[in-house]
Amino acid sequence: MSLTQRQTQSRFGFLRVHFVAIFAICICSVAHAAEPLSSWNEGPAKKAILEFVAAVTDKNGKDYVSPTERIATFDNDGTLWVEYPMYTQVLFAFERVKKLAPQHPEWKTTQPFKALLEGDMKTVGASGMKGLMQIVMATHSGMTAAQFEQEVSNWLATTSQSRFKRLYTELVYQPQLELLAYLRANGFKTFIVSGGGMAFMRPISEKVYGIPPEQVVGSSVVAEFQLKDGQPVLVRTPKIDFINDKAGKPVGIYQHIGSRPILAFGNSDADMQMIEYTMAGPGRRLGLFVHHTDADREYAYDRKSHVGTLDKALDQADANGWVIVDMKKDWNKVFPAHE
Amino acid sequence: MSLTQRQTQSRFGFLRVHFVAIFAICICSVAHAAEPLSSWNEGPAKKAILEFVAAVTDKNGKDYVSPTERIATFDNDGTLWVEYPMYTQVLFAFERVKKLAPQHPEWKTTQPFKALLEGDMKTVGASGMKGLMQIVMATHSGMTAAQFEQEVSNWLATTSQSRFKRLYTELVYQPQLELLAYLRANGFKTFIVSGGGMAFMRPISEKVYGIPPEQVVGSSVVAEFQLKDGQPVLVRTPKIDFINDKAGKPVGIYQHIGSRPILAFGNSDADMQMIEYTMAGPGRRLGLFVHHTDADREYAYDRKSHVGTLDKALDQADANGWVIVDMKKDWNKVFPAHE
Repeated sequence: MSLTQRQTQSRFGFLRVHFVAIFAICICSVAHAAEPLSSWNEGPAKKAILEFVAAVTDKNGKDYVSPTERIATFDNDGTLWVEYPMYTQVLFAFERVKKLAPQHPEWKTTQPFKALLEGDMKTVGASGMKGLMQIVMATHSGMTAAQFEQEVSNWLATTSQSRFKRLYTELVYQPQLELLAYLRANGFKTFIVSGGGMAFMRPISEKVYGIPPEQVVGSSVVAEFQLKDGQPVLVRTPKIDFINDKAGKPVGIYQHIGSRPILAFGNSDADMQMIEYTMAGPGRRLGLFVHHTDADREYAYDRKSHVGTLDKALDQADANGWVIVDMKKDWNKVFPAHE
Repeated sequence: MSLTQRQTQSRFGFLRVHFVAIFAICICSVAHAAEPLSSWNEGPAKKAILEFVAAVTDKNGKDYVSPTERIATFDNDGTLWVEYPMYTQVLFAFERVKKLAPQHPEWKTTQPFKALLEGDMKTVGASGMKGLMQIVMATHSGMTAAQFEQEVSNWLATTSQSRFKRLYTELVYQPQLELLAYLRANGFKTFIVSGGGMAFMRPISEKVYGIPPEQVVGSSVVAEFQLKDGQPVLVRTPKIDFINDKAGKPVGIYQHIGSRPILAFGNSDADMQMIEYTMAGPGRRLGLFVHHTDADREYAYDRKSHVGTLDKALDQADANGWVIVDMKKDWNKVFPAHE
């Protein structure tokens, strides 16, 4: 080394700038890390989440869970995005019936299609689950996987929700986006486990939730490999493959994920089995339900709702150690923007 | 700053050490990056892999693929580990019949169980796929998911392959382990897509291949959610849920992964549909088959084999641009150690 002091200062001067920059970045990171769930109010729900994540990520603690086993599963409708007054996918199916009607003249005289085309929703409703499945099958099959993906993407990119006049993909819950990101930052793998169709959620799951298509578990129709004009394609058939709801959720988790979650989040009685299965594993566990209590900012419904009924789970929550997240009390923000 | 040159040197001296260390790390990284597939000999197969990965990861190139779409799927038996002279899972099923025989006195008089217990493999073979499925169902169901996982783990941890006298989990192909790691280092997500049972591979996939359970797609039995002694459990039933083989592979990919792979690797005609589906997508694609040509180091078999038949795919490879990987020529090492 034969540098003068000035040369040395000059040579290492840039480091000073770097140190300052790095120091600043550290400060920001700490500040950010200290408030990872800013749309969650202080209260028992936020406390339960923070304590749970701290416990399972503390290498020296008795509740430590290795990152490979940090599986978190989330219901979609009513847990991650708005499901009221009607499940988004059902509205998609209804609108597709109208769009496809010219190619199906028989629908003019066949229920429940006739009623739907005439706007007679009472008769559609009276057709029950059987009628709904007819509508879903007629609108979700008979095309290739790629064509269906395109239909869903186009519809979600252009259709607004009735009350909020915003795209469904904008009516996702900001506190849940923060929670998903927080869990991933703490080594969790985040999954959607929904009663809705896998193929309906996958086109938007990565962009909206940061959850890639392969981490979306849901209901499905039977698909078939076929050659069309010499090209190999997957065709969606009008046959149910699997209904990923209620007792189907733990089964879907087993078949798709292969590991029991340590955290599960739902919003209705149809999520109870997923949360029971999650909580029954060894070690520390967390099960949560969104309770829709906010008629002003979103909706208020629970025990006697036509969507997302939360009844038995409310009664059993305390005894089972499930956390009820009160939307009005626990969330200081509901949607990402324009509130 | 009012430091003397000596003080300055002293103060920044540690940086010199760091620079040397960082420089050394860089050198090592470059050396490592230059030889990521050291068990692959130079030749058309290795060249095809390196060029493909370079092309799809070059942000300025016409073949660039974003990381979310860099899906690579691998068959398991004969592609990632030894399948000759018999699929590992079939041997597991055979040995479980012997183990469970005391609880099934009826097997002494019922085929194909009777023949299997008497060591009459000719009769077992003559029972065909129907007989084999009877054996698989009798040994892969009737227990909880957790119990089956334990059975598989115990068996794989203690059972040696007939010729090599090593655990099956040690008879994985070193060049493929390197390829899986190389792909992941280049932003790919690696999946197993096997005709074998998901629940048979998942207990070891992370440890052996670095592939987590949720990235293992395979055949399955129907599972049921039940309460046993008040505890929620998943019970494996003796009913086939899905056979993830041949034309089932693209279907399994659709249902589990939801995106078309850009690279697929198999070793038999049963992988053709997966590779056809992979290659039929837009943009640059790579389809490969292991050709078992090495009787000295592993096995030599193809067109008329009782496992992993490679016949039509060999004939159609050139016309379709599929890469045939010749084990003897293309791999300078077959297993991880003790060769």
